[in-house]
Amino acid sequence: MAVQKITKIGFLGGGQLARMLALKCHQMGIIPYVLSPSSHDPAAQVVQHWHKGDLYKRSDLLKFLKLVDIATFESEFLNSNILKEAQKKSKTTILPSVRVMSLIQDRKTQKELLLKNKLPSASYLSVSNFAQALDAFKNFNSQMVIKQRHFGYDGYGTFIIKSKIDLNKLKNTLNNNPYGFIAEAFIPFKRELALSVCRNKRGEFAFLPLVQSHQENAKCLWVKGPVATDKLTSLKLKIKKFMNNINYQGLLAFELFETKAGLLINELAPRVHNSAHYSMNALSEDQFELHIKAILNQPLTRPKILSSGFAMYNLISVAPKRIHLPLLKNVNLHWYGKSEHKPGRKMGHLSTTDSSADKALNRLKKARGDFKI
Amino acid sequence: MAVQKITKIGFLGGGQLARMLALKCHQMGIIPYVLSPSSHDPAAQVVQHWHKGDLYKRSDLLKFLKLVDIATFESEFLNSNILKEAQKKSKTTILPSVRVMSLIQDRKTQKELLLKNKLPSASYLSVSNFAQALDAFKNFNSQMVIKQRHFGYDGYGTFIIKSKIDLNKLKNTLNNNPYGFIAEAFIPFKRELALSVCRNKRGEFAFLPLVQSHQENAKCLWVKGPVATDKLTSLKLKIKKFMNNINYQGLLAFELFETKAGLLINELAPRVHNSAHYSMNALSEDQFELHIKAILNQPLTRPKILSSGFAMYNLISVAPKRIHLPLLKNVNLHWYGKSEHKPGRKMGHLSTTDSSADKALNRLKKARGDFKI
Repeated sequence: MAVQKITKIGFLGGGQLARMLALKCHQMGIIPYVLSPSSHDPAAQVVQHWHKGDLYKRSDLLKFLKLVDIATFESEFLNSNILKEAQKKSKTTILPSVRVMSLIQDRKTQKELLLKNKLPSASYLSVSNFAQALDAFKNFNSQMVIKQRHFGYDGYGTFIIKSKIDLNKLKNTLNNNPYGFIAEAFIPFKRELALSVCRNKRGEFAFLPLVQSHQENAKCLWVKGPVATDKLTSLKLKIKKFMNNINYQGLLAFELFETKAGLLINELAPRVHNSAHYSMNALSEDQFELHIKAILNQPLTRPKILSSGFAMYNLISVAPKRIHLPLLKNVNLHWYGKSEHKPGRKMGHLSTTDSSADKALNRLKKARGDFKI
Repeated sequence: MAVQKITKIGFLGGGQLARMLALKCHQMGIIPYVLSPSSHDPAAQVVQHWHKGDLYKRSDLLKFLKLVDIATFESEFLNSNILKEAQKKSKTTILPSVRVMSLIQDRKTQKELLLKNKLPSASYLSVSNFAQALDAFKNFNSQMVIKQRHFGYDGYGTFIIKSKIDLNKLKNTLNNNPYGFIAEAFIPFKRELALSVCRNKRGEFAFLPLVQSHQENAKCLWVKGPVATDKLTSLKLKIKKFMNNINYQGLLAFELFETKAGLLINELAPRVHNSAHYSMNALSEDQFELHIKAILNQPLTRPKILSSGFAMYNLISVAPKRIHLPLLKNVNLHWYGKSEHKPGRKMGHLSTTDSSADKALNRLKKARGDFKI
């Protein structure tokens, strides 16, 4: 009998993204390890190898990384210095690279990265205080978006400024923030779109289909697709060049604005992403499988779209008495097993396929209604 | 905040079927519990609530059943008396019912069940010794199949008899077996087919598509589908009546012979089944989700077929050095995480969809070749 080497992947974090990655590992014959604070965390519940620990604590990270062959994160807001040190000492590679994570976690360096790689994006200015914000406001013709450099998420730390009054309200915040900000030109967009792209070390790519994402209260509510646009071809080429340049390994999510002038990149996320959850039911391989393959340098090919339309609908702040509620025909429920139902929290999502994106979305909206009890 | 009741399902057994059921529970927001002898068992590896125990031991079963809301089994060969007792004492329902399990686990009572419900099947005779087998041999015109009443599986305990010589070889076995046998008329069939049917307590059904299954060394090697035949309509009606009669709850798998005279039922399995693994990639809901919904009395609807063709290929006795091997485009690997590679063991399976069943199967055969290292 040949000695079998079973790959162990370590997930830094125990949220829903790590949970869905871990479930996919089980299917693929890879052993998932999870580092997280509580055994009640969504990902902790689905693995045999859960390790209690603090993601920002050197010793916890080092101990955990030593147990696994490779590691990946579900949030780009980890401490890159601690992470780099633990990576070096443990000799366990973290992918996507900590360097890229740290560039993307800071809005300013993320912008510089986009600019340097000729990726289309709104123009921006650095803003460290109210006075600089005033200058930016003039520069951007009295319409701009202020974004906190670090730890912005689901609208937190993002402020749309359309008047002096808006800006004045932010005076305190702007003058007393340890992270600093960027100011961006306000982009009037037709739709928000999203694109997920996978790359492995040998430079193979897998592009997921372009989708539309709809935000409510600065949080993604639903996604539908596939979206056709003739603007995509040139962007794809630039994205390929960019990801080759930085030797990106794993899935990279692009949030896009569709404007009259073409597609602009709003944000990057160096990880699996809410906007690609539809892939679990609509593609021959989902984003989790593709991300895992990519970080393991396994061959990547474009997944097949299984239906002419698909949609995903987030279940936000839902706390049903029983989770398994009557669902509409052919609607798939993905529940995250969160132990607390805080307002605004993503508790799970619904997804489905249909002959068109709108038909799929409409059925999900109905199903979402049934879900409320 | 409403108090949330999260359903706990107990799986009696830790093999690949329990593993795939448990993984589906995670997705659906149900907490899976597993009772099995070793923490290395396939299903033990994917749950937080694994309980060490012997499936044939009264006290282990009782203790386990008390922890869960409902339980199901992955093998119909459990001891029905012990199970009934533990069910009664724990007040935890086991579904499909232990009564039906016990009728199906015995080839003779299974045959009686089919006959009583007017389901088409090969004629049979009870055989307890060599002399009775000789009588049966004459009765069936010198062509018959001998099946051990209990614990027959993947060809084990099944003997095709086409001559007196074949029969004489079995003399000892026939005269010294604690379980007894049945003898069946030998059925010359065109193809072997399989059909999985789900029913919940309120009498809703979900029929999975009919598929062809191909055996090698008395073990299923591949499945492809969907299969069209005009003979199915009348059989479906009979199956509905039958499952209503016995108030069947859960998934019931039918192995069928396609003959000149129509479809005959070869065997029943009161559980999720290898012949329906294709459903994980080819249907909008797979057999595991449907089985779980059925035992929880959730609404059932016919799953959507996502492609005009699909196939599944078992990975038997495969022991790759690394599991994540180059796979062909759009082929999904499902690995069971078995710790030992005994000959003949199912280690995992591949599945895919394509424009036709044969195209899908051919791609899997190629992928299976790549898998051998």
